[in-house]
Amino acid sequence: MTAAKNSTEPESPLTFLHLNSQEAEVVDALRKHSFVTRSDISRFTNWSRPKVTGVVNTMIGRGLLVEVGEGDSQGGRRPHLLKLNNELGYIVGVDIGATSVDLALADLNAHVLVRSTGPVDVRGEPSLLLSEVKRRVFEMLRRQGLRPEQVVGVGVGVPGPVDFARATLVAPPLMPAWENFPIRDFFHQLFPNAVVSVDNDVNIMALGELRAGAGIGVDNFLFVKVGTGIGAGVICHGLVHRGSTGSAGDIGHICADRSGPICHCGSTGCLEIMAAGPAIAARGMKAAQSGGSPILKKLMEANGGTLKAEDVGAAAREGDRTAIEIIQSSGHMIGDVLAGLVNFFNPSLILIGGGVSNIGNHLLSSIRQAVLRRSTALATRELMIKYSGMGSEAGVTGAIHLALDYLWLVTGGDK
Amino acid sequence: MTAAKNSTEPESPLTFLHLNSQEAEVVDALRKHSFVTRSDISRFTNWSRPKVTGVVNTMIGRGLLVEVGEGDSQGGRRPHLLKLNNELGYIVGVDIGATSVDLALADLNAHVLVRSTGPVDVRGEPSLLLSEVKRRVFEMLRRQGLRPEQVVGVGVGVPGPVDFARATLVAPPLMPAWENFPIRDFFHQLFPNAVVSVDNDVNIMALGELRAGAGIGVDNFLFVKVGTGIGAGVICHGLVHRGSTGSAGDIGHICADRSGPICHCGSTGCLEIMAAGPAIAARGMKAAQSGGSPILKKLMEANGGTLKAEDVGAAAREGDRTAIEIIQSSGHMIGDVLAGLVNFFNPSLILIGGGVSNIGNHLLSSIRQAVLRRSTALATRELMIKYSGMGSEAGVTGAIHLALDYLWLVTGGDK
Repeated sequence: MTAAKNSTEPESPLTFLHLNSQEAEVVDALRKHSFVTRSDISRFTNWSRPKVTGVVNTMIGRGLLVEVGEGDSQGGRRPHLLKLNNELGYIVGVDIGATSVDLALADLNAHVLVRSTGPVDVRGEPSLLLSEVKRRVFEMLRRQGLRPEQVVGVGVGVPGPVDFARATLVAPPLMPAWENFPIRDFFHQLFPNAVVSVDNDVNIMALGELRAGAGIGVDNFLFVKVGTGIGAGVICHGLVHRGSTGSAGDIGHICADRSGPICHCGSTGCLEIMAAGPAIAARGMKAAQSGGSPILKKLMEANGGTLKAEDVGAAAREGDRTAIEIIQSSGHMIGDVLAGLVNFFNPSLILIGGGVSNIGNHLLSSIRQAVLRRSTALATRELMIKYSGMGSEAGVTGAIHLALDYLWLVTGGDK
Repeated sequence: MTAAKNSTEPESPLTFLHLNSQEAEVVDALRKHSFVTRSDISRFTNWSRPKVTGVVNTMIGRGLLVEVGEGDSQGGRRPHLLKLNNELGYIVGVDIGATSVDLALADLNAHVLVRSTGPVDVRGEPSLLLSEVKRRVFEMLRRQGLRPEQVVGVGVGVPGPVDFARATLVAPPLMPAWENFPIRDFFHQLFPNAVVSVDNDVNIMALGELRAGAGIGVDNFLFVKVGTGIGAGVICHGLVHRGSTGSAGDIGHICADRSGPICHCGSTGCLEIMAAGPAIAARGMKAAQSGGSPILKKLMEANGGTLKAEDVGAAAREGDRTAIEIIQSSGHMIGDVLAGLVNFFNPSLILIGGGVSNIGNHLLSSIRQAVLRRSTALATRELMIKYSGMGSEAGVTGAIHLALDYLWLVTGGDK
């Protein structure tokens, strides 16, 4: 890609980032600890102090590291703190949801400089949505006084099954027009120096929690997104588990009820069609129409004859018995499926996120009840089930970390 | 443990095995490749030839490595092949089943020297069963002219949930007398120089397939044991996944039918009580008694009024319609549960093993049918489901590799 560039342009930031194996060890230490002293590096690497000094001085000379203030004294002079040079390059995180896109621009330390959120329609043409993404990202760059050539990594989350190696969507039910669309090429054209990675939205939410949320230090956990659909991000041995064809975590099509309705996937009684946002809304509307819930009836009339899952949540918060039962019923179905997965995977943590997780605590408590009722005692001995505290931050944060992981993998900085 | 030994005894083999980080890199290469040349080590480690020569000569001098014959010439002299010195120490593998125990004595290259199998009763006192294990292992050692002090690693598989760090069973339904029994201490008393590791029997079967069977090079797969119970070994990212409390893979208590009978675990309709060996046998006896199957009736009379799952398999092989339907019904229930796990975990391989896997191909084909019917197309795109080809070898082979993994972890040879 560099070959096609005008020769008067500055050296590619990406080439500039290529590391030898010693520099890679230093970057690895800095990624884990943000600020370190030369003594820290000596301890992490088992290198002699003269060797650390040599490698660090070369990296400072190349502009990879900078000295920032002083650390605590261990008796003598206060040691200089080192960190990665923020200004070597920038990262764009893109979290595409069904109806909105979350964007963030971050530095190499994953520190977010600016964010942007806007409505989009994922059901339409990819080029339409992506030109809106482009407009917003270029606006963020302009506000920071940065050029597209300074972007060295792009991480993208999409709400559908991803062929991770090819960075394309595979038979995405929500967004059929995106099948095989070359997302990586699109971002390469905008950011010629960037490493571009694309993953499923729930995987990046799990990665966001792993690196910056409740998942820090947790080797085995699930992030379960309950929204228009239901899916899970699976962290195993401290890594995102994508499975043999990238579809791991696709729990929305596990059977919740053999005698249930037919799902868009062709099977009957899938968890998603039984318990996700649209099912909650549909049951709410049925209750409103049948007179089972005066509050839901009033909300439906105020909404022009329709209801969303959030409205059922609002009615439940007002104490509406029918709304509470509708939410509990979804929670029990989700919990029954999770109970089997808890027996199988034995995670120590399940984080519930996605739009429907804002519906209130009846959902969470009924999920917990069902899991505790059906899982073995040993499998739940150390299990925590809670709402994701990162909310919509999880996806875009994960997208930035995905981009950083693959940037350092390509440049040699991920050992 | 060395401190308690008589000072006239020879140096502990385990102390002798302690490696520095360079020696650990060489051992790591030898574990992966069995026989290597000095050039191979230089390629694996990126060390200069003089450095390789230095480290290798030291290891030969210490007796860790031996030269064995010559490899193919690359133009000049034929290079010497190196391997780990087999005679540094020996490994005992123990696979305890519900009714039998498989034992093997192997060298440090995981090469089995001698095997032993015998009937035991896991439902009784641990000390009774373990004294039989002791008798057989000591007999194997005697036949090889070896002393207990030469055993440096013991791997034990047990048919119940294991607290891996403590090496004890936790609330084991099949073998309640074993709860908290100090298995590691028992083997330490027999083999004072050994590193002792204990794991669930299905985990060691999965490990056996990973290192020496159909799982070689497969990063994500399941080993499903169908016998008296049903359980799975989970390989994720090329490692055994044990989960937060060691109970991962406990799929026998996933709900197969909400209106099913009550399981010994207290839940209703668990897969194990619906579909494992005893359920197949019970349905066979019901068919024999009701006159639904003359062949089963004849077999039951010949067996003194009882039937085993194997008898139903024998009737199915003779074309008995009822027996075939009983087996298919179990296969479909197992397959329906596996379908959900395939959506969640997206493995590339499922190996079916355990006693009931000898029942014939109707079981396998009905498992396959159910998985393909209920899993998503993407999740099954690269999925193979087949019987384990290792049979009863899988467990004891896995026990040896478990012992070797933890031996090298302790001595520094597992990087």
